[in-house]
Amino acid sequence: MKAAIVGGSGYVGGELLRLLLGHPEVEVVQVTSDSMAGRAVGRAHPNLRHATDLVFAPHGELKSTDVAFLATPHGESIERVPTLLASGTLVIDLSADFRLKDPDAYVRYYGRAHPYADLLARSVYGLPELHRDALRTAPLIAVPGCIATASILALHPLVRAGFVDRSPTVVDAKSGSSAGGIEPGPAGTHAERSGSLRAYASVGHRHTAEIEQETGLTIALTCHAVEAVRGVLATAHALSSSAPDERTLWKAYRAAYGSERFVRIVHEPDGSHREPDPKILAGTNYCDVGFGTDPHGGRIVAYGALDNLGKGAAGAAVQCLNVRAGFPEATGLGFLGLHPV
Amino acid sequence: MKAAIVGGSGYVGGELLRLLLGHPEVEVVQVTSDSMAGRAVGRAHPNLRHATDLVFAPHGELKSTDVAFLATPHGESIERVPTLLASGTLVIDLSADFRLKDPDAYVRYYGRAHPYADLLARSVYGLPELHRDALRTAPLIAVPGCIATASILALHPLVRAGFVDRSPTVVDAKSGSSAGGIEPGPAGTHAERSGSLRAYASVGHRHTAEIEQETGLTIALTCHAVEAVRGVLATAHALSSSAPDERTLWKAYRAAYGSERFVRIVHEPDGSHREPDPKILAGTNYCDVGFGTDPHGGRIVAYGALDNLGKGAAGAAVQCLNVRAGFPEATGLGFLGLHPV
Amino acid sequence: MKAAIVGGSGYVGGELLRLLLGHPEVEVVQVTSDSMAGRAVGRAHPNLRHATDLVFAPHGELKSTDVAFLATPHGESIERVPTLLASGTLVIDLSADFRLKDPDAYVRYYGRAHPYADLLARSVYGLPELHRDALRTAPLIAVPGCIATASILALHPLVRAGFVDRSPTVVDAKSGSSAGGIEPGPAGTHAERSGSLRAYASVGHRHTAEIEQETGLTIALTCHAVEAVRGVLATAHALSSSAPDERTLWKAYRAAYGSERFVRIVHEPDGSHREPDPKILAGTNYCDVGFGTDPHGGRIVAYGALDNLGKGAAGAAVQCLNVRAGFPEATGLGFLGLHPV
Amino acid sequence: MKAAIVGGSGYVGGELLRLLLGHPEVEVVQVTSDSMAGRAVGRAHPNLRHATDLVFAPHGELKSTDVAFLATPHGESIERVPTLLASGTLVIDLSADFRLKDPDAYVRYYGRAHPYADLLARSVYGLPELHRDALRTAPLIAVPGCIATASILALHPLVRAGFVDRSPTVVDAKSGSSAGGIEPGPAGTHAERSGSLRAYASVGHRHTAEIEQETGLTIALTCHAVEAVRGVLATAHALSSSAPDERTLWKAYRAAYGSERFVRIVHEPDGSHREPDPKILAGTNYCDVGFGTDPHGGRIVAYGALDNLGKGAAGAAVQCLNVRAGFPEATGLGFLGLHPV
Repeated sequence: MKAAIVGGSGYVGGELLRLLLGHPEVEVVQVTSDSMAGRAVGRAHPNLRHATDLVFAPHGELKSTDVAFLATPHGESIERVPTLLASGTLVIDLSADFRLKDPDAYVRYYGRAHPYADLLARSVYGLPELHRDALRTAPLIAVPGCIATASILALHPLVRAGFVDRSPTVVDAKSGSSAGGIEPGPAGTHAERSGSLRAYASVGHRHTAEIEQETGLTIALTCHAVEAVRGVLATAHALSSSAPDERTLWKAYRAAYGSERFVRIVHEPDGSHREPDPKILAGTNYCDVGFGTDPHGGRIVAYGALDNLGKGAAGAAVQCLNVRAGFPEATGLGFLGLHPV
Repeated sequence: MKAAIVGGSGYVGGELLRLLLGHPEVEVVQVTSDSMAGRAVGRAHPNLRHATDLVFAPHGELKSTDVAFLATPHGESIERVPTLLASGTLVIDLSADFRLKDPDAYVRYYGRAHPYADLLARSVYGLPELHRDALRTAPLIAVPGCIATASILALHPLVRAGFVDRSPTVVDAKSGSSAGGIEPGPAGTHAERSGSLRAYASVGHRHTAEIEQETGLTIALTCHAVEAVRGVLATAHALSSSAPDERTLWKAYRAAYGSERFVRIVHEPDGSHREPDPKILAGTNYCDVGFGTDPHGGRIVAYGALDNLGKGAAGAAVQCLNVRAGFPEATGLGFLGLHPV
Repeated sequence: MKAAIVGGSGYVGGELLRLLLGHPEVEVVQVTSDSMAGRAVGRAHPNLRHATDLVFAPHGELKSTDVAFLATPHGESIERVPTLLASGTLVIDLSADFRLKDPDAYVRYYGRAHPYADLLARSVYGLPELHRDALRTAPLIAVPGCIATASILALHPLVRAGFVDRSPTVVDAKSGSSAGGIEPGPAGTHAERSGSLRAYASVGHRHTAEIEQETGLTIALTCHAVEAVRGVLATAHALSSSAPDERTLWKAYRAAYGSERFVRIVHEPDGSHREPDPKILAGTNYCDVGFGTDPHGGRIVAYGALDNLGKGAAGAAVQCLNVRAGFPEATGLGFLGLHPV
Repeated sequence: MKAAIVGGSGYVGGELLRLLLGHPEVEVVQVTSDSMAGRAVGRAHPNLRHATDLVFAPHGELKSTDVAFLATPHGESIERVPTLLASGTLVIDLSADFRLKDPDAYVRYYGRAHPYADLLARSVYGLPELHRDALRTAPLIAVPGCIATASILALHPLVRAGFVDRSPTVVDAKSGSSAGGIEPGPAGTHAERSGSLRAYASVGHRHTAEIEQETGLTIALTCHAVEAVRGVLATAHALSSSAPDERTLWKAYRAAYGSERFVRIVHEPDGSHREPDPKILAGTNYCDVGFGTDPHGGRIVAYGALDNLGKGAAGAAVQCLNVRAGFPEATGLGFLGLHPV
């Protein structure tokens, strides 16, 4: 299967390329970048030195392929999609452009009318754990945001079991620095970001809309920048009058994820790794989920941890491709992660 | 004023000693530690090399002083307090032993009956911003926990203004590694802790009781270990039907803290430092507070940031001493903090 | 091929297990650890949760296998080797016990006579880039130390080309925290180690002997602890009257490593990754080498960067197994590394 | 004494302002910055919020003061100096413009002829430990580079005692991220810089010239970027045939620094802090020095550790002012540093 990566000089593009170079069913024929056009991909992604002879091509020279991955920033993907779809190319978009089903929500969170609102109905939200069947025939796949995936997978078993009976559901998210992209601005230098513990979005973060769409809950989301390079931890505080006990929660999570290859339930009684921690997930496609019950506070705590460039972006894109193309779902996604790292 | 530090080989004891060495009204006559007895204090606290000739004395050789700071672990302080009080020594206890007023809450959170429950009524909770008057005559001062101080100071203006009208109040706390003390166990090695983003207490953390005592709210607290050495950020998600606007919130915070020397309201419209971040507070006695309003989610977000060894422990102890002894409240606490660090 | 890992609860053992689980020609039949006996390996190595059903066995129940990897601390391996060899098991020892050829050097650096000095002649130093042929028939393979590998591979082309004509060769090494093992002691807690920049061995480090053995140079080695989890950078300052120019040095490095799969020459004219950096090598078996020439100072600077748990330990062990068993040398070692991480 | 800081929006300017705000003999009347003109200094330096009402003024509106600190980048200071000197203002320049005495060395390292070479003879190198007397009357003080100070103070006792008898002296320097300034470029983002261990200047670093000027040695300097925010460690490997023993080295360091307030000799037999580490020096004006002797390698290892913004820049500037103005040398420099941080 021939693939192109559009916008391949950023962190998501680089991670996608790394995964696809190891995918036995995919041949990457092109990686585009205007800023790096003409240079070897190893100049942008030093881990790929010696692993490929690919050279960045300008966006304008995009070749026809079976599948095109769009790793361009939000707003840049949107104009390319109709043409690609018309030519019969499978489009896997890693931007936010086609994630929301509701055009009004798009206006609310992105500040303008969606120029191709009709396509929103044709795109499938790229979370196989929730939309596997629809993904098998999707012409356009919208890979979820990293905080959204962590939050949705943390909350899904609780929603499914009907445990959340009051609103809002508070989601307190923590992200590492690579989530800000390869050119993060003044607050993203090492001296400023190292050891920081601060909110960068108290309210109104755009992933709110995705989480609400997929869970049906009212979400109160706050996002923090913490010291880490890869990794998101979403801590969801779900209000629950019933306050189910641990055993009941175990059952709900197992019912939801018992056969999922990339969702692990982590909730250990002792040791150094009792709850999900994205630290050990760098480079993997796992989302580790966990929980705690708080009858005193009338709440269930739910955790979702993932690598923002892995299951939060490039890994999810490959998983979606596997589902869509009928490959075994874990193809090219076998890396187990490092400990320690 | 002559002072002794009991249990001076840990991080809190070291920070306290650093502050007191620069305090013009205090002379530290003794620092005790059984494990380091006979060694120069600079061996435990390399920043104090050349700054003092003090040598650790064993606990058993504690001298009589005007004030005794107890920096021993929880449970160890408790037995020393009655004797010290009987001898007329002012006791400033940095452990959790005398923070709770309600003996039943003590049982619930500490798992045993308090052996000196009568003293709970005589101790004053060492938060000058809430208890300045009582502190002026207190025989026994219980310095608050670091997460408690950050949470209480974040929430206090909202409680005072009557904005919190639903429960629970979710507090999502993030702590750096020094909060775990000088001997943190297997999860606290650099390889395990570096870059980690994980909950270490989903529910039931002991500071819950302190925050509830001081705010009157039902608190749903979850505590996370994140990469930082010094620093706590408490993000409080307070449910509020009224959803006051920004201007109203500014007013509430200014009303509460307008004349407080060590509480700064941080909520800037742009720049790299818009919300409170403990990163810039290392070594200081500040608690920076901030807020956001979320009408969509029916909530106010409130932040409290501090140095867990500063305003979260040793700094607060010195501030309490200043109030108690009638010194200007900022005496010995003038360090402004470093940027970057 | 059936394999056992002796001493599998530490970082090296965990990394080895991760690599072998993905090795198509190897079946790990046993992992031993006395301290973790009876527990699932995922309890020690959280990245391996769900990836294997293996449970730690006590050392005393070691089964017979085709190959035994010894990941026990220095001094513990030594007694197991003669028995294993006698039973025809291929032994790949990751400790320092069989690295030195010269029994006198062993005494000098390890402080006692080697109890099986006769075996030193039979062991082969596990650096395929220097000893590939001897490794093909070795009964006992001694995997090099991490600092030694980085230093030797940095210097080898210079020695081979005869460029080093004065002594000593100064090697200034920098190591991340995982090199100190899973139980690093008081200086290894996050609060102490984070952001540190300090020498832990000014002189006399044991890897000196290995580097001298393999290069024939007089080595003046100083080792530093710096903030990183995985990763060693050896900066070798080789005195050279001839001061060869850049082109000549390129030639020497290409001549030495042109066909080596796991040694990359990194020396770029611009960009963020001009010289070798172990940061991008976590989890890989690469050693990136580079150089600079300093006619003013009469010196060549040579760099060797690697993951101390990868090419510096477990990766090298697998590479040696591949050479010894006749598998393609990169089998199981295909991971390209992450950027950023 | 009235002072102005020219170029006050960077890290050095911010640190200088912090120190001067606490200096009892100095009143900062102006801080200039073109990019931040009109904004409160707390917007650039969040640690200084509430501590001052100063607002950045444009460079063009510089007022006349007793002393002007130039914290502008190299090359920008140079044009301002003659005018300031002519007006009788004491100039303390934190750039590299007036550090070198030899105009030819300036050409070699800075690539152009010095436009005011005559002033090089009038400027005094701002290292009180070496030039205290000359500083007392200096009209122009050139504050040394951070790597230079660490290297010179490490080596000075060895040079003074005549122990270095072969060349070159290898200096392997490691720097934290703030040394790169507030706008560090693509390699300075958190994702790229965190955990990095890489050389950024193999040879030819400009501080080479300063170190050679002050020590008289031939210096072979290589500079590395390591993870830390503040802090430089210079490890000097000095070739010495005589190989003096530890006691002799102690004597040499004590002879050089016995009465120096800001140079501490650190060389302890045990514990976590045996050798100098800049980690504990953030915010201080200390340079901690240490050593090791290596008869095998024919070398003495010498360490110099400091805060690149403290003794490596702003702290040194204040110390020089104190010497020049006749204030006690430690005025305003009493901060002891934090442990841990």
